[in-house]
Amino acid sequence: MATKAGDNTKFLLDEKDIPTKWYNIQADFKTPLPPPLHPGTGQPIGPQDLAPLFPMELIKQEVSQERWIEIPDAIRDVYRLWRPTPLYRARRLEKALDTPARIYYKYEGVSPAGSHKPNTAVAQAYYNKKEKVARLTTETGAGQWGSALAIACSFFGLQCKVYMVKVSYQQKPYRRVLMETYGAQVVASPSADTQSGKKVLEADPNSPGSLGIAISEAVEDAATREDTKYSLGSVLNHVLMHQTVVGLEVRKQLEKADAEADILVGCIGGGSNFAGFSFPFLADKLAGKAKKLRVVAVEPSACPSLTKGKYVYDFGDTVGLTPLVKMYTLGHTFIPPSLHAGGLRYHGMAPLICKLYDEKVIEAIAVPQVATFHAAVQFARAEGILPAPEAAHAVRGVIDEALRCKNEGKRKTIVFNLCGHGHLDLSAYEAFLAGKLQDYEYPAEKVQEALKHLPKVKA
Amino acid sequence: MATKAGDNTKFLLDEKDIPTKWYNIQADFKTPLPPPLHPGTGQPIGPQDLAPLFPMELIKQEVSQERWIEIPDAIRDVYRLWRPTPLYRARRLEKALDTPARIYYKYEGVSPAGSHKPNTAVAQAYYNKKEKVARLTTETGAGQWGSALAIACSFFGLQCKVYMVKVSYQQKPYRRVLMETYGAQVVASPSADTQSGKKVLEADPNSPGSLGIAISEAVEDAATREDTKYSLGSVLNHVLMHQTVVGLEVRKQLEKADAEADILVGCIGGGSNFAGFSFPFLADKLAGKAKKLRVVAVEPSACPSLTKGKYVYDFGDTVGLTPLVKMYTLGHTFIPPSLHAGGLRYHGMAPLICKLYDEKVIEAIAVPQVATFHAAVQFARAEGILPAPEAAHAVRGVIDEALRCKNEGKRKTIVFNLCGHGHLDLSAYEAFLAGKLQDYEYPAEKVQEALKHLPKVKA
Repeated sequence: MATKAGDNTKFLLDEKDIPTKWYNIQADFKTPLPPPLHPGTGQPIGPQDLAPLFPMELIKQEVSQERWIEIPDAIRDVYRLWRPTPLYRARRLEKALDTPARIYYKYEGVSPAGSHKPNTAVAQAYYNKKEKVARLTTETGAGQWGSALAIACSFFGLQCKVYMVKVSYQQKPYRRVLMETYGAQVVASPSADTQSGKKVLEADPNSPGSLGIAISEAVEDAATREDTKYSLGSVLNHVLMHQTVVGLEVRKQLEKADAEADILVGCIGGGSNFAGFSFPFLADKLAGKAKKLRVVAVEPSACPSLTKGKYVYDFGDTVGLTPLVKMYTLGHTFIPPSLHAGGLRYHGMAPLICKLYDEKVIEAIAVPQVATFHAAVQFARAEGILPAPEAAHAVRGVIDEALRCKNEGKRKTIVFNLCGHGHLDLSAYEAFLAGKLQDYEYPAEKVQEALKHLPKVKA
Repeated sequence: MATKAGDNTKFLLDEKDIPTKWYNIQADFKTPLPPPLHPGTGQPIGPQDLAPLFPMELIKQEVSQERWIEIPDAIRDVYRLWRPTPLYRARRLEKALDTPARIYYKYEGVSPAGSHKPNTAVAQAYYNKKEKVARLTTETGAGQWGSALAIACSFFGLQCKVYMVKVSYQQKPYRRVLMETYGAQVVASPSADTQSGKKVLEADPNSPGSLGIAISEAVEDAATREDTKYSLGSVLNHVLMHQTVVGLEVRKQLEKADAEADILVGCIGGGSNFAGFSFPFLADKLAGKAKKLRVVAVEPSACPSLTKGKYVYDFGDTVGLTPLVKMYTLGHTFIPPSLHAGGLRYHGMAPLICKLYDEKVIEAIAVPQVATFHAAVQFARAEGILPAPEAAHAVRGVIDEALRCKNEGKRKTIVFNLCGHGHLDLSAYEAFLAGKLQDYEYPAEKVQEALKHLPKVKA
């Protein structure tokens, strides 16, 4: 039997190959990232503004200009429970598509939470523990991020309180149960546990909640308790940086596979999985090398921050409690339609990614919901793994690129990040198979309306 | 950083280490396995009796006395999608238990179905395809086995029809959706699609169904259609043999870990995961070596076939359509309580395992339901992975052994098979965390009653 390295289906690394440093793309920017501004003064915020919410080490990482940040052994030690994750050659999908393209996918679904989210959850729990924080709060929509943080807190002996959007809390109990199994306290948001929650409930006792409200509750909880800090699962610079372990591993694995990427594809909501996967490849592009490499972000056409948003200063949350950040935004008051890819329902986008998109270092496309499930089912039947609805957006993008290769007779190498499995999202597949899943038109009017309410930035 | 092989958390193998042969334990038996008997004549059944239901290659494997059976490349090629699976050192669990024992676990949850079941589903689909079978039928309870067969049929282009116990079909839709996503047709059993189903429905239009009824429907469907055969997920000799890839990999991985097992632990329902994990180690014991190795099967105390059953000839199904097999049985009319570990709700046990238990080559213990979930939650919080309720039985057995080591100050090496993840079983965890999960007392009277109805075997 042939044993050439490139013949494998999976490309595995040893535990000693788990990256020892995170890659900080800010070091390779030619111009600095526009700073977050204080909404009251319009001035750049400083570390002390963030100190009530985050431990100092994470605040330092947020603004660091160092190219490489050492990963503490205690974090790598937890990573060993599932990292390095496998890189697959999608031979069966290539065959099903009859494409000359070579398709590879990194699979982050092997983590205990079933997604890439623990890569940063573990790091955040560690630094909080180190600075003697006893308790973390966070918000969660469908629960992907909340379950990752619950696991991380369980590993480091931290208490964890998750404010879960009420409609998800009621309709999708299983991720809540997963969080509780790991020892987290989960409440439906709006809750009576915070002033923010009480205010919303007074106005509307039947409020279904929103991510914006849940953020307000989690932030208020952390800001008003000495022993507590707040944790976020995407968007922020340090969160994206923690995810670069993904792309750093992929680079090593492609070497083992004797392959070089022509196109990188990832789905994009807040930006963390896309960034973690692609940033280690962008170093070359930012240095003027690897010019032919295309890096494609795939977002839902119902919530198209990059492709239809405006690159301006806006709030990170719906209520308007956070600093102002410069990003592609649909307006912080825009509430996206109820997509099954809950992880991609964000009005804005990570500032690091927005800068790269603005400078045309990366591309973006938007795809409709039903088409992503078509792609996911085709992938599952060929490759076995059931993609999470978020990851299905990347799969759609990849299949389209592979079919283009077929039409053009080109043998390109396409690499994508399958950032999670869909075993906790089967209600979405049920709706798709029953023909009940709908596409949402681009909500142009709502976006126009929301963009009217962008905050005014003082000079 | 230390890089001694034994320091790792995971012990991975390369694709070239996927076993090339299955191990057939029958070759190492000193006396032959009691043959299956025809219920009408009391005579051993021959290949021709099984031909309407199974392809000839699987019938040959069922009775083969060869020690090693070659695994066709086409099957190994599919195995490469998830095999070799990792072996873990449970360092965090050891620490949480403060035990001197060393605990290792093989993790089969990385398969696309989330369990060990595809190891045989893929083999069965392959041999059926090779003999030009176009369609497979099977029964499923909660859906673990049905989803594995659905995936395998998708890989080999076979149609697949799954008769799913109606109460599960209605209450646990997600595994049904998983099967349908892979292209299988799933009907609630009893159905109007078969005579067996119609008969049951005539007697009771609201019948909740049972595994026994579903088997009758799947068998009838296969027996009455030229293009169709039947597929079973456990109990039979060839099914157990296909699972030996698990134990064969573990042996190699323990070598890499520089470890030798003192105790092997697995949960047991029909017997396939336990057999696949332990049989490759039993070769030594059957040859009179490895005398100190203990091999422990853990069954639910509510369905204790090995520890409370009788070693006699009985039907494999509830209705009485199958050949008679000699096994530890609670009586084929015994309906086990509605345990959440649906995969362990079987009145009998694989004949190969029964013979080994009868000859005291292996041990068995029974554990109550609530205690298994206590163990599973402790495991999840320490190691991250959420065990399936079936696998939680093994975890309970392991924790008890590890605590015994602690009490006795002994540093034993315990190895177990974590045969699946629990992401599709969160309703069970929800009940446990809410304190609503109950223990079922050993249903002594029901078993006594069922044992009165054992079939009479003609001399």
